[in-house]
Amino acid sequence: MKVDINCDLGESFGAYRMGADEEIMPFITSANIACGFHAGDPVVMRRTVKLALKHGVAIGAHPGFPDLVGFGRRPMELSAEEAYTSVLYQLGALSAFVQAEGGKLHHVKPHGALYNMAAKDKQLAEAIVKAIVDFDSSLVLYGLSGSELIQAGEEAGLKVAEEVFVDRTYQADGSLTSRRDPKAFIATDQEAVQQAIHMVQKGEVQAVTGETVAIQADTICIHGDGPHALTFASYIRKELESKEIIIQTIK
Amino acid sequence: MKVDINCDLGESFGAYRMGADEEIMPFITSANIACGFHAGDPVVMRRTVKLALKHGVAIGAHPGFPDLVGFGRRPMELSAEEAYTSVLYQLGALSAFVQAEGGKLHHVKPHGALYNMAAKDKQLAEAIVKAIVDFDSSLVLYGLSGSELIQAGEEAGLKVAEEVFVDRTYQADGSLTSRRDPKAFIATDQEAVQQAIHMVQKGEVQAVTGETVAIQADTICIHGDGPHALTFASYIRKELESKEIIIQTIK
Amino acid sequence: MKVDINCDLGESFGAYRMGADEEIMPFITSANIACGFHAGDPVVMRRTVKLALKHGVAIGAHPGFPDLVGFGRRPMELSAEEAYTSVLYQLGALSAFVQAEGGKLHHVKPHGALYNMAAKDKQLAEAIVKAIVDFDSSLVLYGLSGSELIQAGEEAGLKVAEEVFVDRTYQADGSLTSRRDPKAFIATDQEAVQQAIHMVQKGEVQAVTGETVAIQADTICIHGDGPHALTFASYIRKELESKEIIIQTIK
Amino acid sequence: MKVDINCDLGESFGAYRMGADEEIMPFITSANIACGFHAGDPVVMRRTVKLALKHGVAIGAHPGFPDLVGFGRRPMELSAEEAYTSVLYQLGALSAFVQAEGGKLHHVKPHGALYNMAAKDKQLAEAIVKAIVDFDSSLVLYGLSGSELIQAGEEAGLKVAEEVFVDRTYQADGSLTSRRDPKAFIATDQEAVQQAIHMVQKGEVQAVTGETVAIQADTICIHGDGPHALTFASYIRKELESKEIIIQTIK
Repeated sequence: MKVDINCDLGESFGAYRMGADEEIMPFITSANIACGFHAGDPVVMRRTVKLALKHGVAIGAHPGFPDLVGFGRRPMELSAEEAYTSVLYQLGALSAFVQAEGGKLHHVKPHGALYNMAAKDKQLAEAIVKAIVDFDSSLVLYGLSGSELIQAGEEAGLKVAEEVFVDRTYQADGSLTSRRDPKAFIATDQEAVQQAIHMVQKGEVQAVTGETVAIQADTICIHGDGPHALTFASYIRKELESKEIIIQTIK
Repeated sequence: MKVDINCDLGESFGAYRMGADEEIMPFITSANIACGFHAGDPVVMRRTVKLALKHGVAIGAHPGFPDLVGFGRRPMELSAEEAYTSVLYQLGALSAFVQAEGGKLHHVKPHGALYNMAAKDKQLAEAIVKAIVDFDSSLVLYGLSGSELIQAGEEAGLKVAEEVFVDRTYQADGSLTSRRDPKAFIATDQEAVQQAIHMVQKGEVQAVTGETVAIQADTICIHGDGPHALTFASYIRKELESKEIIIQTIK
Repeated sequence: MKVDINCDLGESFGAYRMGADEEIMPFITSANIACGFHAGDPVVMRRTVKLALKHGVAIGAHPGFPDLVGFGRRPMELSAEEAYTSVLYQLGALSAFVQAEGGKLHHVKPHGALYNMAAKDKQLAEAIVKAIVDFDSSLVLYGLSGSELIQAGEEAGLKVAEEVFVDRTYQADGSLTSRRDPKAFIATDQEAVQQAIHMVQKGEVQAVTGETVAIQADTICIHGDGPHALTFASYIRKELESKEIIIQTIK
Repeated sequence: MKVDINCDLGESFGAYRMGADEEIMPFITSANIACGFHAGDPVVMRRTVKLALKHGVAIGAHPGFPDLVGFGRRPMELSAEEAYTSVLYQLGALSAFVQAEGGKLHHVKPHGALYNMAAKDKQLAEAIVKAIVDFDSSLVLYGLSGSELIQAGEEAGLKVAEEVFVDRTYQADGSLTSRRDPKAFIATDQEAVQQAIHMVQKGEVQAVTGETVAIQADTICIHGDGPHALTFASYIRKELESKEIIIQTIK
């Protein structure tokens, strides 16, 4: 039994600092690095790539909408061609830093509103998938477990990693409870980790409404910001390992 | 005897059109494609790459300063790391489109103020060259004939293409006459082409002050905008060919 | 009987030219000037303000989404606070140029996707209206005839100008036929002007599905780009005047 | 005897936090608020304006170069028209928020590289001054004590506030010691405050090379970031007040 732990990194921009990238690296197996559209800049991208390589963490591109002030979290309506080319552009940009440092890009995980919209919008999901396939079909696609994005990736022959969120509750249809819902977040670290272990071991999760839902947990997303993030990262690793779950990136 | 004809292309942005990319393609052998910092956007980059491949024109990245409103023409002071990473980012972004279309990136020509500053600033020239070497050392570096950029490229072992400007006059030290000088531009197409042929055949140019200056003319830069650009492109090609100068890209 | 003719202007950006601002000015009574978010830059804004003042054309702010590459045409989900502050920011920026030239800002017309979304989304409409009221409650609000935006403006006590589109067809509910519909545009200049005159004189329009729909036509939007725009502008003015409709800005 | 204490604020951007704006407000008399070019966004501008009004702190516009990734610290070559219009745009944008909250803009202090370049470049200084005069000639211009910017302001009839830096050493010509010089910064808070008091009381400062230099200290710039900034702000206020120096904004 095994699982990957991924985290969004390289989100600083110019003089603005975000995240504790250096401190979180030892706890994760996959880093999703921002590509300059919703966060990140060329200097930050280079430093984050170097950091990931130093820690032996798998490097993924984390493309987002071209909306820096909104941090890529605001839904935007892009045409299929705009979505395809925006993702392809960001894949190439991040890949250049990986290549220059002698590494190899490993995966792609869309960010924020792009991730959420592609989970439900087939046309958008296919545009993202096409960008990955056209750039490098050996890349792994990270997406919300059970989403349209995962399905589009599988149909195109991509290796996929189905992602679960450790601190979020689920609906009966396998989707995440909306952040606006007071029940969206799990209250304690203990419960969060219990849910994660259950998802990995049993392939199911209990919805907020009580139903048992099938869910594939190839990779767990954790946060990289703040002192609690580090405490939690350390805690979940220890708990997973105590259950003899191997923590390693997707192969 | 041979020479390359290059042109800056893919400079449209969103709803804004610039250049007659489709019409100029048949007359050139190298296209320098904007990478989204001073001009160009992902959709434009993709279309321009496809167009160049269709016409068998060699594709180059045309990285510039991150200054869209200034079209990359305003001098900016970047640190060596900022210059290195900005160029690397743009190389990767454009390369992704070339790769996705089954082509291969051929060269790199910095744009505008980045080009002009790198012609004289050794540290900046070296930062640009390092980005190219780290990304793909088989790329050809296009730079102002006799410049610091060319020298930095040669020292790093890059293949270089020394560029001349067909409509500009030269100073006794081999530099271009400043655009602010009334003598900066050559008055007629005939004189411009005569100068170009002379540079290619003899490896020299007559400075505005009368001196004969040695100059290497591997590639000639022409403009891609406006009806006259097309007339001129057709004219210079015919004249060069009538002198049995072979027009082909740098190999 | 009277009507205003308005046009979106000042949409150039840096080295990019858009629109025939100088040529269209003599035909219009209100100019909606882009404020730097979806189009326009500080230099362009100043020049366009000066041009409008020279021609005695009423100056309006034309705020849009912060999406230059999408020209403000792509729907984006902004919070009410983001919408309010984005509009307020743009009103202030444009107003500074008007003030510096000794003029007075006259109206506000949202652009593109912001205009279209505010026509149907009450919360967004109210955020825009609040920005105008807080900045200067004597400004006139231009919006789609019969829209939520017009209603929100009226409720807040703003003077409003209900806008009609001269080259577009209407639905039975008074909304514009979608651009994706083949029937979206009116085929000939003659028909377009006939419809405009009918809307001004009778306060009604015939929907594509045949129904007669009540419509208020305080201001007619015409285009400013291309040689046909000038021909059309001249033509509609002449036709309106021949029907003894006075062409003047909203007072 | 009196002096103003000013601080650069409102430098957060989107999801990025910078500065302890709320905590520093009680210690200062003038706030220089970023206007969205080098830092700040519409939401941040509004919040910072409200905060300053709540604390009775004078509000100034803090315009910078259009270089978010460089935080406005990288020298850029703008034409006089570009500089003029960029400043005017930012003045208007910030002013809109002040106006909407029922306040009145009080001063203008250019930021970063724009501030430093305008201290030495007469043409740039005049472009900035012209923007202020054209927008509202009752605004106070904050600039480096003894600089070209101050001189240009005085010549144009603006009220000026000559600024000193509390933690920086001075050269024999009254300019700041370059940040690259190891002697650029004053080592201890005690020495820094001693120098400030001396400048306010005596109108002079001792250069790093020993000379006594005349200097006008109308306003003292302090930093707003980090816990030490708050400790220092509290300390300098107490020390100035203990010398019976009145701390109030420029009138």
